[in-house]
Amino acid sequence: MAAVEQTLDERPAPGRWPQGAAWIDGHLVPIGEARIPILDLGFTRSDVTYDVVHVWRGSFFRLADHLKRFTASMRGLRLTIEQGDAAITAILADCVRATGLRDAYVAMICTRGAPAPGKPRHPAFCANRFYAYALPWVWVMPPEMQARGAHLIVAQTPRIPPDSVDPTIKNYHWGDLTRALFEARDAGADNAVLLDSDGYVTEGPGFNVFAVIDGAVVSPDRGALEGVTRLSVLELCAELGIPARLGRLTADDLRNADEVFCATTAGGVMPASRIDGRILSNDRPGPISARLRERYWQKHDEGWHATPVDYD
Amino acid sequence: MAAVEQTLDERPAPGRWPQGAAWIDGHLVPIGEARIPILDLGFTRSDVTYDVVHVWRGSFFRLADHLKRFTASMRGLRLTIEQGDAAITAILADCVRATGLRDAYVAMICTRGAPAPGKPRHPAFCANRFYAYALPWVWVMPPEMQARGAHLIVAQTPRIPPDSVDPTIKNYHWGDLTRALFEARDAGADNAVLLDSDGYVTEGPGFNVFAVIDGAVVSPDRGALEGVTRLSVLELCAELGIPARLGRLTADDLRNADEVFCATTAGGVMPASRIDGRILSNDRPGPISARLRERYWQKHDEGWHATPVDYD
Repeated sequence: MAAVEQTLDERPAPGRWPQGAAWIDGHLVPIGEARIPILDLGFTRSDVTYDVVHVWRGSFFRLADHLKRFTASMRGLRLTIEQGDAAITAILADCVRATGLRDAYVAMICTRGAPAPGKPRHPAFCANRFYAYALPWVWVMPPEMQARGAHLIVAQTPRIPPDSVDPTIKNYHWGDLTRALFEARDAGADNAVLLDSDGYVTEGPGFNVFAVIDGAVVSPDRGALEGVTRLSVLELCAELGIPARLGRLTADDLRNADEVFCATTAGGVMPASRIDGRILSNDRPGPISARLRERYWQKHDEGWHATPVDYD
Repeated sequence: MAAVEQTLDERPAPGRWPQGAAWIDGHLVPIGEARIPILDLGFTRSDVTYDVVHVWRGSFFRLADHLKRFTASMRGLRLTIEQGDAAITAILADCVRATGLRDAYVAMICTRGAPAPGKPRHPAFCANRFYAYALPWVWVMPPEMQARGAHLIVAQTPRIPPDSVDPTIKNYHWGDLTRALFEARDAGADNAVLLDSDGYVTEGPGFNVFAVIDGAVVSPDRGALEGVTRLSVLELCAELGIPARLGRLTADDLRNADEVFCATTAGGVMPASRIDGRILSNDRPGPISARLRERYWQKHDEGWHATPVDYD
């Protein structure tokens, strides 16, 4: 199924834009030309939600879960678009096909749109917009960092509280996360974990956080995105007979854990080896983290939750 | 002084684009064609600061104050651009000249930029970007609403705390403010005021808030933008012999005040007449609010803090 309105003559040949392709206003364009209106409230008010699904070896991974969350996020912000799941799927596939990429980072975005001339200046009066793009695979933490284990800090900057901006609605309010990334860099670390105002662990910039304590995997039960990769981790734990639960974690729980790892669509299971300078698991990925990471990719090769992309 | 790199043949004639003009990547374009890259972290991470100055009857108002705050905001986010104050001023004037507008809303924006291919995925490695645009005058509250007094609510949604995202660095993290705007609309009100997590008044979506209590003007001393119009209000109070101060205000202080008004660049001094359904000042703008509003515009006509735009 082709979602793009371009005529056959205009449509890009499969694989024409390996650096990335985007769907903007009903047309596929190379990523370098992909732009949004400067007046879109998605930019000027960060009034926007999005989701990211990955393509691995030619198949979308857990596409249905990402579409379900994206739809829920739009509903949560009172955003509506004409495209349903089938149309979105077709647009995402069109983007991937235009890149020809077998491994890709694929984003779907819904913005509030620009204020309509002559209408009241309230977001309720805007026509919402859908955008999408596919890029070459992105690693939030590169493979060499995953192999040695990431060096994390617990940031001083607290996460934006859920009652101000709901973290389960995937959003671009990254001011706190960006500050934490600079804190990490200033400390000579790779990345950061943020606490809520009560001192409990929430998440990092673009990933869920997990601690292994007394052989059980624990991830925060609040203040964090309900990650699709987090769900995969919980399913893998069940399969492997590793106890796993969502619960509260303090910074000290994390520092005293046997292992710490992170999880995200753009990276999978990513082990840490240091936190605030403390060395975990003998300065390398711990055994449970390593096992989950290995199994996560092995399952991809077995076709787990895979939706093949039609590249022709 | 002309800041735009376009050749004379390419440069728009003065007044060519009355609907708005923007400066994008060194070129002036009509506002309908003004777009930013979809991969700019200014969009995908709301990693951006901005400022808005107005032009009234052909002159910028308090341009130096806006440039000073914009520069401080960039410094606060570790953003750097090649343009200094003189170059920014020339670009803003070019935008206004291209519209021919005597009354205009003029924005300057600095974004983090897009991640650089082949460099680490950290915002420290991005080339930051400057954008600007001029639009026909925008009223955050239209004149008829100002004349009857705005109907406000105290929102349930709390403002994002300053230790997560600093409100004195002007930013697009409007998730909480947008929620509050929907709360206001659902309640049949015009607009909203947000509290911090301790119950103190902060600000509204794009404006500072003031209460008149026992003849004195009070505006929150924390959790709010250090508004340039707020500064004008304080100066006008001094001139008119009205006691004024920054201090703490609770929701009840606001509800029990003699008068309430709001202030912003895109609207000036904007009186309220109701808050949470309670009627203030006999359901019309109170005398001190009305006097400040009148004097604010009168002073504009007298050339207060004015920098004339060269329209030729």
